[in-house]
Amino acid sequence: MSLDFQSWASSCQTRIETFLEARLPAVDCVPERLHKAMRYSVLGGGKRVRPLLSFAAGELAGADSERITIVAAAVELIHAYSLVHDDLPCMDDDILRRGKPTCHIEYDEATALLTGDSLQTLAFELLAERPLADAPEAQLEMIAQLALASGSRGMAGGQAFDLDSVGKMLSLPELEFMHIHKTGALIRAAVMLGARCSSCLSNEQLAKLDHFAKCVGLAFQVVDDLLDTEATTATLGKTAGKDAEHNKPTYVSILGISQARELAAKLQHDAHQALDGFNEAALRLRQVTDFIIKRKF
Amino acid sequence: MSLDFQSWASSCQTRIETFLEARLPAVDCVPERLHKAMRYSVLGGGKRVRPLLSFAAGELAGADSERITIVAAAVELIHAYSLVHDDLPCMDDDILRRGKPTCHIEYDEATALLTGDSLQTLAFELLAERPLADAPEAQLEMIAQLALASGSRGMAGGQAFDLDSVGKMLSLPELEFMHIHKTGALIRAAVMLGARCSSCLSNEQLAKLDHFAKCVGLAFQVVDDLLDTEATTATLGKTAGKDAEHNKPTYVSILGISQARELAAKLQHDAHQALDGFNEAALRLRQVTDFIIKRKF
Repeated sequence: MSLDFQSWASSCQTRIETFLEARLPAVDCVPERLHKAMRYSVLGGGKRVRPLLSFAAGELAGADSERITIVAAAVELIHAYSLVHDDLPCMDDDILRRGKPTCHIEYDEATALLTGDSLQTLAFELLAERPLADAPEAQLEMIAQLALASGSRGMAGGQAFDLDSVGKMLSLPELEFMHIHKTGALIRAAVMLGARCSSCLSNEQLAKLDHFAKCVGLAFQVVDDLLDTEATTATLGKTAGKDAEHNKPTYVSILGISQARELAAKLQHDAHQALDGFNEAALRLRQVTDFIIKRKF
Repeated sequence: MSLDFQSWASSCQTRIETFLEARLPAVDCVPERLHKAMRYSVLGGGKRVRPLLSFAAGELAGADSERITIVAAAVELIHAYSLVHDDLPCMDDDILRRGKPTCHIEYDEATALLTGDSLQTLAFELLAERPLADAPEAQLEMIAQLALASGSRGMAGGQAFDLDSVGKMLSLPELEFMHIHKTGALIRAAVMLGARCSSCLSNEQLAKLDHFAKCVGLAFQVVDDLLDTEATTATLGKTAGKDAEHNKPTYVSILGISQARELAAKLQHDAHQALDGFNEAALRLRQVTDFIIKRKF
């Protein structure tokens, strides 16, 4: 616990990058173009917010860092797959991601489709191929938890709800429903899978972490909406102002900037409060929370 | 074992349909459109060849039929997801599947994309959410096996290789490489996951089944290529003559019809031979093999 937050976060990011670099199929492995596109879409970019949450939660639970690295990588692969598919012409039709051309621009649409598909599959392969929990039954539960968080009643469902809501006026509860699924579910899985790499935490403690993760997931989205309004494309590394342009309901469009900022602050406070029972061991989770709220991209 | 093949196959198909009907999210579950599209793409169609193989292999191993139903459903969901994505405009751009409009025609491209994504996720959720093997460690291996068979070094990789080969002349080994991945890997997983629902078979017996599954997988594709040449769109329930139209290398384009028929017969023979050590217990696998070879659609 002696490292400052920035050094700790860098070491987590390096661990994830090194692991994914070694674990993703090599560029000379047939079919080469698909494997190049998979590596292009995953490596060398992103804030790795979800992995940071997995590490922070896993360390809180005293879990083995190799296990945490693998679950963090699996969650990040699900996130990366969703970005590749989200950027396709039939979805957000975006050309810029993490400051680089999106996968279908750099390669082609068919390759981007198969890239997303294969990244999702690899996430589940990672979660099953070696022991990641104190009991194999717990590991099966972790796999089911990631699947539930990613599928039609989680992330993909949130994206579908988002599609259906373009051009519509959503109520605040509807917007919240959308984000609890679209981004919240995977953030929650990142926290919970990290924590479950060890069996040390009680069910009561896991429930507190889950509540923490819900607050952080919503806070992440409120800040995302604020950044889309306030930041520039160059800073974001993705197209800014997209939500307004696509007439998408956001926290900013529904609440206005000032109230959206207040909501982010309230969620930050609630997230910290959920960690009150953990004392010093929750330091990293608190730091990641503040990092998510204060980020500029 | 007293049922004739047709009655046995119907009972397996009914089991799968009933299970999937109950397990797929309901049409009134938010997001409704996505859940409708998922059900549309999975229910009420298809020969269910892969589930039949899972049932035949599972029964050979003396496995519990509820377990077999679930692994068979998971494999079928992976198959269904691959069809939905394969039919998209950026891939095969097809409008007809199982005699109905393809998912993106009936709904829209974005919904079809998310439908395929969510069907894949659901496959892994099914494999993790309840006990399916005598030991949880074996179940984790089954999940890893399905992931390997489905991802970039399996089915999706075969599709990418297929994309790269359009308009090219492939050698017979290259064509075989493509099909071992594109269709063979999932057929192999269907057999092996069915068998592994019980721990009764020895490693040697599992290796024999694996060899059987490889022969059946290739035979399936050779017959598919023959049907694409010889059958009509009405019989197939999907567009016939597509391979030649897209200038795709097939067993027929490389070997000619007559040699392709001989190859199918040889693979059928090899598949039967691989089952020689199993006696009467392999009856259903033999029957499914012959059904695959003799099918007209």
